[in-house]
Amino acid sequence: MDADATARDVGEFGLIARVIDRLTGSPAVLLGPGDDAAVVATPDGRVVATTDVLVEGVHFRRDWSSAYDVGRKAAAANLADVAAMGARGTALLVGLAAPADLPLQWSLDLTDGLRDEAAVVGASVVGGDVVRSDTLVISVTALGDLEGRAPVTRSGAQAGDVVVLAGQLGRSAAGLGLLRDGEQEGELVDAHRRPAPPYDMGPVLAVAGATAMCDVSDGLVADLGHIARSSGVHIDLDPADELFLTGGEDHALVATLPPGVDVPPGARVIGRVRAGAPDVTVAGQPAAGGWDHFA
Amino acid sequence: MDADATARDVGEFGLIARVIDRLTGSPAVLLGPGDDAAVVATPDGRVVATTDVLVEGVHFRRDWSSAYDVGRKAAAANLADVAAMGARGTALLVGLAAPADLPLQWSLDLTDGLRDEAAVVGASVVGGDVVRSDTLVISVTALGDLEGRAPVTRSGAQAGDVVVLAGQLGRSAAGLGLLRDGEQEGELVDAHRRPAPPYDMGPVLAVAGATAMCDVSDGLVADLGHIARSSGVHIDLDPADELFLTGGEDHALVATLPPGVDVPPGARVIGRVRAGAPDVTVAGQPAAGGWDHFA
Repeated sequence: MDADATARDVGEFGLIARVIDRLTGSPAVLLGPGDDAAVVATPDGRVVATTDVLVEGVHFRRDWSSAYDVGRKAAAANLADVAAMGARGTALLVGLAAPADLPLQWSLDLTDGLRDEAAVVGASVVGGDVVRSDTLVISVTALGDLEGRAPVTRSGAQAGDVVVLAGQLGRSAAGLGLLRDGEQEGELVDAHRRPAPPYDMGPVLAVAGATAMCDVSDGLVADLGHIARSSGVHIDLDPADELFLTGGEDHALVATLPPGVDVPPGARVIGRVRAGAPDVTVAGQPAAGGWDHFA
Repeated sequence: MDADATARDVGEFGLIARVIDRLTGSPAVLLGPGDDAAVVATPDGRVVATTDVLVEGVHFRRDWSSAYDVGRKAAAANLADVAAMGARGTALLVGLAAPADLPLQWSLDLTDGLRDEAAVVGASVVGGDVVRSDTLVISVTALGDLEGRAPVTRSGAQAGDVVVLAGQLGRSAAGLGLLRDGEQEGELVDAHRRPAPPYDMGPVLAVAGATAMCDVSDGLVADLGHIARSSGVHIDLDPADELFLTGGEDHALVATLPPGVDVPPGARVIGRVRAGAPDVTVAGQPAAGGWDHFA
């Protein structure tokens, strides 16, 4: 019956069993899905933890993205936050609130996408919950390992630091624009459906001495604004046509590095930290932009 | 403007700032809310992690429960899962998917409830996400510390063990029934709105030698069925009028203890583990019941 089955047909426990069947383990998973809770190794005595929620119609559309791609994107959004602390992702927990008529296959494809994106960093899905909801909502929590390093927060940027970018900007937003225009294929559309955050650059930039770091999920100006305010510094970006200041969801990483530090391969300088009012400018001129979920 | 303000009025970042203002720290929190991710101490090199999702109209109603009580219940559901592993809760992460017209005060009261229930076990809210959604959905992830003990899973029950219960059963379901009949006050209604799981009994039963344990969220028979199937044993409950076999949400803890072990104060014997088909009976007679979210 599974070909046309829905969540209602197989029931909560049937769905959970089928989801668990598709998951794979990883070395950090001491106890995987199926119990009251999972147990994950945290060898350095600390765990990094972050949660992101994706809502159908706000963060994804079922006619624009496959379930598999939604799974990859949901995992990527969280694992990029872990990377932005300078950590490596180890585990995901997933809450799925789904209409009773959601095709079973959609849930399974979502699971495969979450599993495969987690595998990119060596993590795995260790637990979750499945409940009924009129709106399709996917909440993902990612755990990560700092491997003995100090976490890189948003508050450590210093006047004199350089601002560096790892990963790409604006491609997801450009792809979203194409989807809105009816385009269904192409590199930019794929970039919107399935962002590819530069996970490895999180630990690399931490080791290089990053004083502050965050992932670009709301847009470069908005996210650098978080660093500017948390650190009490002014950030001035270099003018550059190829930089997209307001589009989010590519999950690039931006960091600040002390002056004189070698910028590691995979990152490039895009601006400078100065003393001054906490704000972001481009070549000294005001910059605005970002994304507010309730605006 | 805050008295009548909505999520839309204050915006995503305004809401997040107001929520963070109400939170308190705890010793395990090395980096609290406001960055890409939180950092939580895991002194024994492992972390227990679990996620539960609550949906308006399915798990709570705004006309039946205050936002504060919804927060306490959402935290309790997760912290009880942590206790059922024999661990102590240390941190919560909260995803809130909310309509743009949700009153700001509702979100703040929810935060207070989450914070206060976490404080019962010495935990605190360390992170989260706020997004827009037509349906109000609250996802909570709880982290916990095993304090050097082995996790108590569902799969270790042995023939000859006794089945013990800590906490109360059926009160939440009875309260729900009264609410459906129009009753708004009383001890049972309060038990539905704000369950009081016996958190401390999780570690106590683990130390006492529990071979299996789980929390009662779907109903006693359904949840003991998980232990019976995972452990490959038959569970026979004593007949007892005051036991409620199918009502969930009280978040009592059920565990199996080896024969001859002193049952710790706060727990009582309610049945026995036998060799046989993985099933749950009452005085040898078939028992059925439980809760399926898609049935």
